[in-house]
Amino acid sequence: MRIDIITVLPELLESPFEASILKRAQEKGLVEVHLHNLREYTTGNYRQVDDYQFGGGAGMVLMIEPIDRCITQLKSEREYDEIIYMTPDGHTLNQRMANEISLKKNLIILCGHYKGVDQRVRDMFVTREISVGDYVLSGGELGAAILCDAVIRLLPGVLNDETSALTDTFQDNLLAPPVYTRPAEYKGKKVPEILLSGDLPKIEKWREEQAFERTTQRRPDLLK
Amino acid sequence: MRIDIITVLPELLESPFEASILKRAQEKGLVEVHLHNLREYTTGNYRQVDDYQFGGGAGMVLMIEPIDRCITQLKSEREYDEIIYMTPDGHTLNQRMANEISLKKNLIILCGHYKGVDQRVRDMFVTREISVGDYVLSGGELGAAILCDAVIRLLPGVLNDETSALTDTFQDNLLAPPVYTRPAEYKGKKVPEILLSGDLPKIEKWREEQAFERTTQRRPDLLK
Repeated sequence: MRIDIITVLPELLESPFEASILKRAQEKGLVEVHLHNLREYTTGNYRQVDDYQFGGGAGMVLMIEPIDRCITQLKSEREYDEIIYMTPDGHTLNQRMANEISLKKNLIILCGHYKGVDQRVRDMFVTREISVGDYVLSGGELGAAILCDAVIRLLPGVLNDETSALTDTFQDNLLAPPVYTRPAEYKGKKVPEILLSGDLPKIEKWREEQAFERTTQRRPDLLK
Repeated sequence: MRIDIITVLPELLESPFEASILKRAQEKGLVEVHLHNLREYTTGNYRQVDDYQFGGGAGMVLMIEPIDRCITQLKSEREYDEIIYMTPDGHTLNQRMANEISLKKNLIILCGHYKGVDQRVRDMFVTREISVGDYVLSGGELGAAILCDAVIRLLPGVLNDETSALTDTFQDNLLAPPVYTRPAEYKGKKVPEILLSGDLPKIEKWREEQAFERTTQRRPDLLK
C-alpha cells in the first residue's frame, strides 16, 4: 500500500509515522507513506496556500491551485484508488470502513486546515470524504494519522500476532472484554479467578459474556 | 490548563505538540502539556511496562504498577479534575464533550497501547473513559492528541479570531456551509455569485440554507 498525504503542516505528522506500528510497517516494506508539503506546489514568491473566504467571515481557506498541482503531479505517476479528504462533515470513520480501505493499493489523503479547502477541490478531485468523529480539529493532519493507523495495522504482517486485530473491539460489533495482567493481586484488588484457572473453554465463555455485558451497558447501539 | 499525558510512546506525540495551534497555545502560556514516559516509573532492570494477559490470548496489556506510580506522583503535586483513559470502548468524543472539557483546569490523559491497560487501573484511578471513534488504533496516543487539539483550540486566546470556532461544524448541530477562496474562476468552475455580491445579509442567509441542506443530506441524525 502507498499513501500520499497532502498537507500544509508535514512537520506535524513526522513523529507519528516514525514510531511504533506505523514505523515498523514502513520498515517491513508493507506500506509507503509520503508527506507532501503543499507550499512546494505554489507559484510566486509568497508561497501562498490559503486566502480569505469569499463572502467574508473568519478563518482561512486552502486554495485550489496548489492542491490541483500536487494531485495532478501524483496522478501522473500512478493510479490512485481514492483521493480522500479529511473533513468533519465527511462520512464518519468506523472499523468496517477501515477494513475496506485496508484493501486499497494507492491512496491520496488531503488534509484541510482552518476552515478547510475551497469547495471546488472537493467537487473536482475528491472521491471520498472522511471524518474521524463529531468534533472539530485545527486541521486534517491528526485525522489523517488516525486513518492511517486504523488502516495500516490491518495490513497482513503489520501486527506481530495477527489474531490480535481480530479480537479487537468493533471487529464483531462487540466491545472487548476486560483484560488483566500480573500481578494477580495488587493492593488488595484481585484478578477474576476464572482467568487464573487455566480452563480455556470457560475463560472463552466468560470473555464472551463480559464483552456482551459491557456492550449492553456502554454501547447498546452496536447490538442493533 | 495543564495536561499530563502518560504513555509508553512519548516520542510518537512530539511533533503534533510542536506544530501549529498546539505549539502556539503552549508558547502563549495558555496550556501546558507534559509527556510522561511510563518506562520511567518502572522498577527493576527490564523497565517492564506490559505483560501477557491472564487467561491467554494475543496482545500485551499495560501493567498497573508503573501507572499507579506515575498517577500517584502527579496527584501528589496538584489536584486533577479528571483522569481520562483513551479507549475504544469509552464514551465517544463529540463537540459538546470537548466544550465541557475545555473548562477544566488539570487533566491526566492515560494512553493504552496494544490490548489496553489492566482493568484494575480503570477501576481504581480513571474518572472518565473517552473514545475518539468506532475504530481501533494501535494505541491511545493519537486519540490523546485528537482530544488535546479539540479541547485546546477552544481555550480563549488560542485561535487568532475567536469567532472562527463558533462557526465550526457541530457547534450548532449543523455542518458548515461550503467555503470558497480566490480565484473566482478556476478552470471554468466559478464561485457562487452570491458570495461575490457583497450583500452580507443575503450571504448569511445563503450560508444558513447551505448548512441546513448539507446537514440534511449528509447527517440527518444531527438534526433530531
